[in-house]
Amino acid sequence: MNQLPLEKKVLKENDRIAAELRERFLTHGTLCLNLISSPGSGKTSLLERTLQSIDGDWRAAVLTGDIQTENDASRLRRFGFPVKQITTGGTCHLDASMIERHLVGWDLDAIDLLFIENVGNLVCPSSYDLGEAAKVVLLSVTEGEDKPLKYPSIFFKSELAVITKTDLLPHVHFNITEAEENARRVHPGIDILRVSNTRGDGITRWIAWLDKRRTQYYSKHAVATV
Amino acid sequence: MNQLPLEKKVLKENDRIAAELRERFLTHGTLCLNLISSPGSGKTSLLERTLQSIDGDWRAAVLTGDIQTENDASRLRRFGFPVKQITTGGTCHLDASMIERHLVGWDLDAIDLLFIENVGNLVCPSSYDLGEAAKVVLLSVTEGEDKPLKYPSIFFKSELAVITKTDLLPHVHFNITEAEENARRVHPGIDILRVSNTRGDGITRWIAWLDKRRTQYYSKHAVATV
Repeated sequence: MNQLPLEKKVLKENDRIAAELRERFLTHGTLCLNLISSPGSGKTSLLERTLQSIDGDWRAAVLTGDIQTENDASRLRRFGFPVKQITTGGTCHLDASMIERHLVGWDLDAIDLLFIENVGNLVCPSSYDLGEAAKVVLLSVTEGEDKPLKYPSIFFKSELAVITKTDLLPHVHFNITEAEENARRVHPGIDILRVSNTRGDGITRWIAWLDKRRTQYYSKHAVATV
Repeated sequence: MNQLPLEKKVLKENDRIAAELRERFLTHGTLCLNLISSPGSGKTSLLERTLQSIDGDWRAAVLTGDIQTENDASRLRRFGFPVKQITTGGTCHLDASMIERHLVGWDLDAIDLLFIENVGNLVCPSSYDLGEAAKVVLLSVTEGEDKPLKYPSIFFKSELAVITKTDLLPHVHFNITEAEENARRVHPGIDILRVSNTRGDGITRWIAWLDKRRTQYYSKHAVATV
């Protein structure tokens, strides 16, 4: 988006709401992750795998954003966790006020892990803080290894990059090592995982990453609530 | 983007410059096409195939947009046609003023066919008229057949949808007929082509589409310059 004065105001107001949300999540012990990628990189498929795989004692919920359709929510509801669709109607990203509105009616004390699936867009969502504990960027092997350099902001701001569709590696020209190097050039400390949602490769490591991230978060939560 | 009052002003100013550009393109007989897709759907690859395939008497030029890097311009310059990179530095779309600025120094009388490769983003570029004769949307078979329904604006505004990476069809869950039906639900009159930039399938039909589009345009141009 253009950095117009009004947009700066919009972003400032967004940051204010996001800070409140972050505080609320911490108070209630809800780890919130904001998943961002191009359209069709596999955010919904990763969430399907996740909801299918997580242990019964992880109480998850999903807010899933799209410009139009309820398709993703329908796909994700099958697993029995609370899911709400946020239909933006044209807006190219989720913002903090949409999250705030869609949390109404949910008891955060009963949600340990809140996944936000952003609108499919590698650019604009990176500017909008949603109060998440961490952003996670997905990049599929069909998109080209130069994408971290072309869309640096989201790789810089994400704690984890998930390289998806690794089952297609034999069929595409994609140098996965170079893609990872490019991600690290933009963000040296970024975690990187390789997964295939179709075959299930790498899902165990993704669940382990979530588990580690939850442990870190809950030690912070313990401090916050002392 | 949010439909804020200031954004409406920005869009109005953009439309003014775009109308001037459209008039200039028509006066000089330059057919301008605006290529839009998600990151990594194959815009640059399609242009590589195009510049390689077009007849010697088609005088083409390319303006290629990216948030960062000159990668695409480097890839496209190999074919000997004029190419300029537009690096937006964070902005999620090209706008008409960027096109106007980057045309400086080019003789439009010597350009029959101007390709604009937009920033990889299926959302925001659809709102910005660049003075093009037609928008062309690309969708790769790895992105899922529901994308026309999820991102209707760009399919509604495009004259042609190019379904790319058809060589990957045996390896992905993608119902190409359903994808085409979805595109036609959003835009009944849309032309649709299937291509594989890797294998070259469908490129002849794409060149034929360009040829047909040029013929239509030049009859309009003839009227305009009588």
